[in-house]
Amino acid sequence: MINIFAIILAGGSGTRFWPLSRETCPKQMLRIVGEDTLLRQTIKRIAGLVSPKNIWIVTTQDKAQDMRFHIESLGSMAKEIQFIKEPIGKNTAPAIGLAAIHLNHLSLDSIMIVMPSDHAIPDTEKFMSDLRLAIRGAMEDYLVTFGIKPTRPETGYGYIKINQALRIALDGLFKVERFTEKPDSRTAKEYLSEGNYFWNSGIFVWKTSKILSEIEMHLPNLHKTLQEIESLLFDPHKPDRPDKPDERHARWTELYASLENISVDYGVMERSRDVLMVPATFRWSDLGNWAALDEVIEKDDAGNIMKGNVIDIGSCDSTIFAGDRLIATLGLKDMVVVDTPDATLVVPKERVQEIRKIVEVLKKNGREEHLLHKTVERPWGSYTVLEKGQGYKIKRVVLNPKARLSLQLHRRRSEHWVVVGGTARVTRGDETYLVRTNESTYIPINAKHRLENLGDEPLQIIEVQNGEYLEEDDIERFEDDYGR
Amino acid sequence: MINIFAIILAGGSGTRFWPLSRETCPKQMLRIVGEDTLLRQTIKRIAGLVSPKNIWIVTTQDKAQDMRFHIESLGSMAKEIQFIKEPIGKNTAPAIGLAAIHLNHLSLDSIMIVMPSDHAIPDTEKFMSDLRLAIRGAMEDYLVTFGIKPTRPETGYGYIKINQALRIALDGLFKVERFTEKPDSRTAKEYLSEGNYFWNSGIFVWKTSKILSEIEMHLPNLHKTLQEIESLLFDPHKPDRPDKPDERHARWTELYASLENISVDYGVMERSRDVLMVPATFRWSDLGNWAALDEVIEKDDAGNIMKGNVIDIGSCDSTIFAGDRLIATLGLKDMVVVDTPDATLVVPKERVQEIRKIVEVLKKNGREEHLLHKTVERPWGSYTVLEKGQGYKIKRVVLNPKARLSLQLHRRRSEHWVVVGGTARVTRGDETYLVRTNESTYIPINAKHRLENLGDEPLQIIEVQNGEYLEEDDIERFEDDYGR
Repeated sequence: MINIFAIILAGGSGTRFWPLSRETCPKQMLRIVGEDTLLRQTIKRIAGLVSPKNIWIVTTQDKAQDMRFHIESLGSMAKEIQFIKEPIGKNTAPAIGLAAIHLNHLSLDSIMIVMPSDHAIPDTEKFMSDLRLAIRGAMEDYLVTFGIKPTRPETGYGYIKINQALRIALDGLFKVERFTEKPDSRTAKEYLSEGNYFWNSGIFVWKTSKILSEIEMHLPNLHKTLQEIESLLFDPHKPDRPDKPDERHARWTELYASLENISVDYGVMERSRDVLMVPATFRWSDLGNWAALDEVIEKDDAGNIMKGNVIDIGSCDSTIFAGDRLIATLGLKDMVVVDTPDATLVVPKERVQEIRKIVEVLKKNGREEHLLHKTVERPWGSYTVLEKGQGYKIKRVVLNPKARLSLQLHRRRSEHWVVVGGTARVTRGDETYLVRTNESTYIPINAKHRLENLGDEPLQIIEVQNGEYLEEDDIERFEDDYGR
Repeated sequence: MINIFAIILAGGSGTRFWPLSRETCPKQMLRIVGEDTLLRQTIKRIAGLVSPKNIWIVTTQDKAQDMRFHIESLGSMAKEIQFIKEPIGKNTAPAIGLAAIHLNHLSLDSIMIVMPSDHAIPDTEKFMSDLRLAIRGAMEDYLVTFGIKPTRPETGYGYIKINQALRIALDGLFKVERFTEKPDSRTAKEYLSEGNYFWNSGIFVWKTSKILSEIEMHLPNLHKTLQEIESLLFDPHKPDRPDKPDERHARWTELYASLENISVDYGVMERSRDVLMVPATFRWSDLGNWAALDEVIEKDDAGNIMKGNVIDIGSCDSTIFAGDRLIATLGLKDMVVVDTPDATLVVPKERVQEIRKIVEVLKKNGREEHLLHKTVERPWGSYTVLEKGQGYKIKRVVLNPKARLSLQLHRRRSEHWVVVGGTARVTRGDETYLVRTNESTYIPINAKHRLENLGDEPLQIIEVQNGEYLEEDDIERFEDDYGR
């Protein structure tokens, strides 16, 4: 019996959906298409075929904890899902190589389904049936990719050319003749009319042993370093292995950082002679930018996509993403408007690929609107910054039923808590007491404290912080249910 | 000696600058051009010529108190300025007639300078010198208007045609041949090239006796009702005058409501044979909509007007009005984007005249974004609604130095106050005590209370209201420094 693993690539930080995406809330954690976030949809989609303990998420060390919290709402399945943590974000060849050596360590006979965490695939059943076909190809020691039938002469994607004359023994799979770079407009039109060109979806299926031998053949330096990493991580008897964990970690960070930053498409797929393609029967979008939503979200009669608190008069072919605040639009054409509590974006559709320039300006000016949302999801609930002023900061804190914050203290701020929903159990120094709706309490500077919700409803408090320094890093934790 | 009065027409509610203008914050109270609000600029402009006690503001009863508070920052002058309160908003002929009978009651020999409260006139000195010229014409028993030299074939204004052949004995004033309706585009181009057509500015100067006799001649019904109102208001010996003030008020409301809703341009100026025009030497805009700002605000090299927290990349000929929240724009052309804490508008310049349609939708849907701003200016300072939720509402309250709120109570809500700046003196029931920065207090339902700032700095508190009903009308006032 061969083991099938799903490797979900979730390292992307993604500025292209700003202001909805932030550094701490990348595209895969957004609910932009469908009912759930892209990452959770990706997991649910593959969980029909792959056992949760064989689902591995590859992401960077700094994102892993947030992502772990993020998938918790998937229930018991979430606990079985494993993370492979990159020391820093890398392109797909190193990331896939890293996953492969982890799998290689477990079992010599496994199949990897490799998929991005942030694509939209609305047709799960068709995806499943195409995936089964791809697995058959992988079993025969091929690298299998999915090709998307082009619907327009897109110049933003690479293409896969299949050769229908080259017969293989597997019905429904085609031999790939070559991969092509992003074409110019005229070439893209030719590809579209020729009929044997497909968009490269970035979803792959292969045996772990096969991808490792192909990496060895086409990217020998990468392969060599991956082997060093493998023995560093998994071989206690390796002669020059550092004894101390932090030295091992430093060494492994250094090795991973040194890996060539190349995509698996350029590094392996374009060079390999053993590539098959499944022509996808499912709808697909890589959601490369705000304009890509047009392909996977139902539009109204005027061609608009509108979400949230929008009043529109007479716009067409526009995408308006609002939240609770009112966005009023009138007579727009081919525009994108995205509202969040602290930032609003207005841009013509044809220029959405330049949004990163705005994010660059924000970074350069030391601002926060590219970093954090006003509402931050935490494992115990969420908090929303309602206002920051000179010497004070106001938050609404929502604590889930039965959840509690860490036992903590702040060196530079005091906090007033007013309960506006539910009942809080408050620990302050040696006391523990209840604070009910419409009651308040005060946490002085340097007082150890803890907030708990023993009830079955969310607890809501308004927290007014006072002090000269009011950042999140003024916190000392003594006990934490979430291992922070 | 003849008395000169300035009549400032400030009844407009103005949906055309939504979302910056609101029902409770009309255009004349906005700081859209120049350093101060349009109304205060209008008062300061005329105060160079007219004594403050002769400045009268005509507005509706429901707006008068807010406007009174609004002009208080003008200092001692503000106390002398008088209000004429219309029972309901009416067009300019009834409003001017109402002002005229008030003046007529004071003195038989007076000159009225009539001007809207919401126009932009950047050149005060030129305005003054033109005004002196107009007064000379008014002294000779003419109706004098100001004509603006057209700079483009505008179809949104009425025009004044002067006849330069008709000589009069006053240098610099011209006899008006006729007023014209808003022209079509071809006609407007002809007017522009002919050179003796001017835009109708809506600013007038005349003797009170002259405008009343012209109203009598051209609008006899209006004149008759104005006379009835005059004796109702000012003649205690009028035979059928109701004794009780509220009956008198009801009668006068009914009479004013019955007046024909006509502009002084259509009703009097177009029909009178005694009209002179001063060709204005000052720059002027009636600020009819967001696009009109182009005429009176300096633009950047790309033709943009940008205010507030804006990051723009590559837009041109666009107007972006932001506040504290970030508005990011990219590649816009001829667009208007206006942000306020609770609503954002995005509209092409060429469609700004349709903004009222959005306001109509808001009204129809029973919403609040056309009515109030999140920050409401009060005579004692301001309050900002930071958040409303189920059973609670959070406000930031800023109390000016030495100011105090009314002694009040609420029947349906309690309030937690956390002081985040300054020191509050709190009265609660029979107690009076100080609450310093980083301290808090609690006002239970039904407790008489008062908040005072004895200090020299603004007092800032965060108020968390709890209750099932949290509207502003749950207030009983016992003592109020502002006569509410």
